[in-house]
Amino acid sequence: MTDEIIELSCNLDDMTPEGVGFALETLLAEGALDAFTTAIGMKKSRPGVMLTCLCRPEEGEKMARLLLRHTTTLGIRETRCKRYILERSLEERETEYGPVRVKRSEGFGVSREKPEYEDLCRIARERGLSLEEVRKLIK
Amino acid sequence: MTDEIIELSCNLDDMTPEGVGFALETLLAEGALDAFTTAIGMKKSRPGVMLTCLCRPEEGEKMARLLLRHTTTLGIRETRCKRYILERSLEERETEYGPVRVKRSEGFGVSREKPEYEDLCRIARERGLSLEEVRKLIK
Amino acid sequence: MTDEIIELSCNLDDMTPEGVGFALETLLAEGALDAFTTAIGMKKSRPGVMLTCLCRPEEGEKMARLLLRHTTTLGIRETRCKRYILERSLEERETEYGPVRVKRSEGFGVSREKPEYEDLCRIARERGLSLEEVRKLIK
Amino acid sequence: MTDEIIELSCNLDDMTPEGVGFALETLLAEGALDAFTTAIGMKKSRPGVMLTCLCRPEEGEKMARLLLRHTTTLGIRETRCKRYILERSLEERETEYGPVRVKRSEGFGVSREKPEYEDLCRIARERGLSLEEVRKLIK
Amino acid sequence: MTDEIIELSCNLDDMTPEGVGFALETLLAEGALDAFTTAIGMKKSRPGVMLTCLCRPEEGEKMARLLLRHTTTLGIRETRCKRYILERSLEERETEYGPVRVKRSEGFGVSREKPEYEDLCRIARERGLSLEEVRKLIK
Amino acid sequence: MTDEIIELSCNLDDMTPEGVGFALETLLAEGALDAFTTAIGMKKSRPGVMLTCLCRPEEGEKMARLLLRHTTTLGIRETRCKRYILERSLEERETEYGPVRVKRSEGFGVSREKPEYEDLCRIARERGLSLEEVRKLIK
Repeated sequence: MTDEIIELSCNLDDMTPEGVGFALETLLAEGALDAFTTAIGMKKSRPGVMLTCLCRPEEGEKMARLLLRHTTTLGIRETRCKRYILERSLEERETEYGPVRVKRSEGFGVSREKPEYEDLCRIARERGLSLEEVRKLIK
Repeated sequence: MTDEIIELSCNLDDMTPEGVGFALETLLAEGALDAFTTAIGMKKSRPGVMLTCLCRPEEGEKMARLLLRHTTTLGIRETRCKRYILERSLEERETEYGPVRVKRSEGFGVSREKPEYEDLCRIARERGLSLEEVRKLIK
Repeated sequence: MTDEIIELSCNLDDMTPEGVGFALETLLAEGALDAFTTAIGMKKSRPGVMLTCLCRPEEGEKMARLLLRHTTTLGIRETRCKRYILERSLEERETEYGPVRVKRSEGFGVSREKPEYEDLCRIARERGLSLEEVRKLIK
Repeated sequence: MTDEIIELSCNLDDMTPEGVGFALETLLAEGALDAFTTAIGMKKSRPGVMLTCLCRPEEGEKMARLLLRHTTTLGIRETRCKRYILERSLEERETEYGPVRVKRSEGFGVSREKPEYEDLCRIARERGLSLEEVRKLIK
Repeated sequence: MTDEIIELSCNLDDMTPEGVGFALETLLAEGALDAFTTAIGMKKSRPGVMLTCLCRPEEGEKMARLLLRHTTTLGIRETRCKRYILERSLEERETEYGPVRVKRSEGFGVSREKPEYEDLCRIARERGLSLEEVRKLIK
Repeated sequence: MTDEIIELSCNLDDMTPEGVGFALETLLAEGALDAFTTAIGMKKSRPGVMLTCLCRPEEGEKMARLLLRHTTTLGIRETRCKRYILERSLEERETEYGPVRVKRSEGFGVSREKPEYEDLCRIARERGLSLEEVRKLIK
């Protein structure tokens, strides 16, 4: 399956890492498909950060406004991308440690499944295990 | 306000960091809107560098030629982006330490102002202060 | 000269560096023009990796399928770029240390030549020299 | 004031970013003074991660064991560092938006204060403001 | 078990990524325990590289000499680290796809095993499979 | 030849890239042997920066004080390193484009020379040439 998404990005040289972390969480909480940072080298030896946000086409302007509000940038670049995506479904499986969701993804000749990371973390924390130990027990 | 800009980039694996720093400064001196580097991992464990240059659409070919001249790349990628930008104005304010320019930016529901970084640096250097100390004195 | 290429990229947070190295080599072996990684910061303090692949427009879907097969991503972004390229030719020169290929590149007012890196490495390994020493001997 | 701390680090090439994020949070929850990741380039074009943990000297072995348990590494490097530190104190101030803690730090000719980041974030989230807006209101 | 190792590192701003990749491979071929690169930001906006080499204490000077020979650096920093290590053993297991070595590691309350990555890669290449597919078949 | 140096470093998550660039330049102006930044991933998805400063042992405390003054850190780590160094000398050579200094370095079986980068940059700027063109003309 393919669809279209928007990629928004801006370069930051006058904002703290604390502030960037907060902006990233805010974008995700407001519906961004993904948000991430890339370390960049800027003029005058500044160790800058590029903040990138992926979103649905109809949310491009909303997300650009959020970026302008929560960062110090003066300009946001927008590009439109085609996206190849796998179709996903979630199913719940019973395990000794309680229910674990399994994400299935299919398309383009690929078929995969993977236990939900959050569920493994929860079990690891509850039982005092490492993630690897949980992964083995679940299988 | 929105406008359009060009993003040019190339991957470098046979050029020194010294040379990349010089190319970056040359691009800025020749009118690039911004220029920055990103560390990338390339084949054969090479710690490469991607050099990116933002410029106005009418300067795309001029900047691509500069990149070909001042780097070792054999190919420059160009993409055209929409850009959301704030409108900017500079005003000068008198302070105890001499005039300081303040950059105002407005648009998309945002209104910000910020003393010019270069002016704060100059005062810090002249007075033997840290930037933070200057920032507090100016306020 | 200009042509058009495709840039494919995906963000990876549930795949090991070993696996990413293998995927990168597979993409290059299957005809990618280039493939490289960028370190990115993702949600929940995950030190993720963006894998990018450049290819000819007619190979876009083939390469997207390879990315879906050899990585854990659920979505691949595709953008189409104009590319400024130099015209290249290879010629072989005889040296004391055997034949060395020299790559010539021309266009946009630029003319460069450069001995093939692989040939210099081979000589360095055969003679127990450093690359710099080989480079000087060849000149 | 000076004291001594332990720096522990390991290189990871067979662990996912998800897993590294979980290990980092676990180290902090178990008493690490700090924990952070650095992107490194490893053999065979692997985009690896170095995980570093700072801790008190008496917790060195405990933290090394946690690293061995929660990562895939086979070896942890330990170095002992002298540390120059400022003395810190927290005081609470009343503001229009409720109490905000202010961290004061002093020593080596330096005296600084800074509102607690978590308190600003809380206010920003409660009031639907940006961090910058909160910072201005608090001052 | 604990032992002691040497960490050697140098900052490079006048060497190409190609050359750094070659130096890294040379260090590993000459007996380094590990070698890796870290992207660093240097003066004058140079996107430099730090090359680090881990080796046994008795090989410190040999490796420092190799670094001086194969890089452009003028100085190598050396620190001595304590190392916590797991004890390792290799055993071979028969699988449908031929023999696969399994690395076992034990110590500090941890016991792990992992199929040799090189063996999985070989099978993946021979059979036209992805690494994930091989991993599932082997289990 | 070997000597001893001090490595000072601190992690920064509440300081802007602008400020870090200024601190880096200040350290170099005050006598640091080198100063550089490394991008690090910190808790709460903060894209932090580690600032490192190399200096002579007798300047360790002075440099630590400068770091505390010009950054926002609350603690500076110090380690003492052995350093392998080449002996350096500068000589001036006449060229068609005026005098160019050449740096010679020797020791540990290595002997190298290299034109001073600043001199090549000056000529490139004065003549409107690329660095590569200057390098060829000088040889």
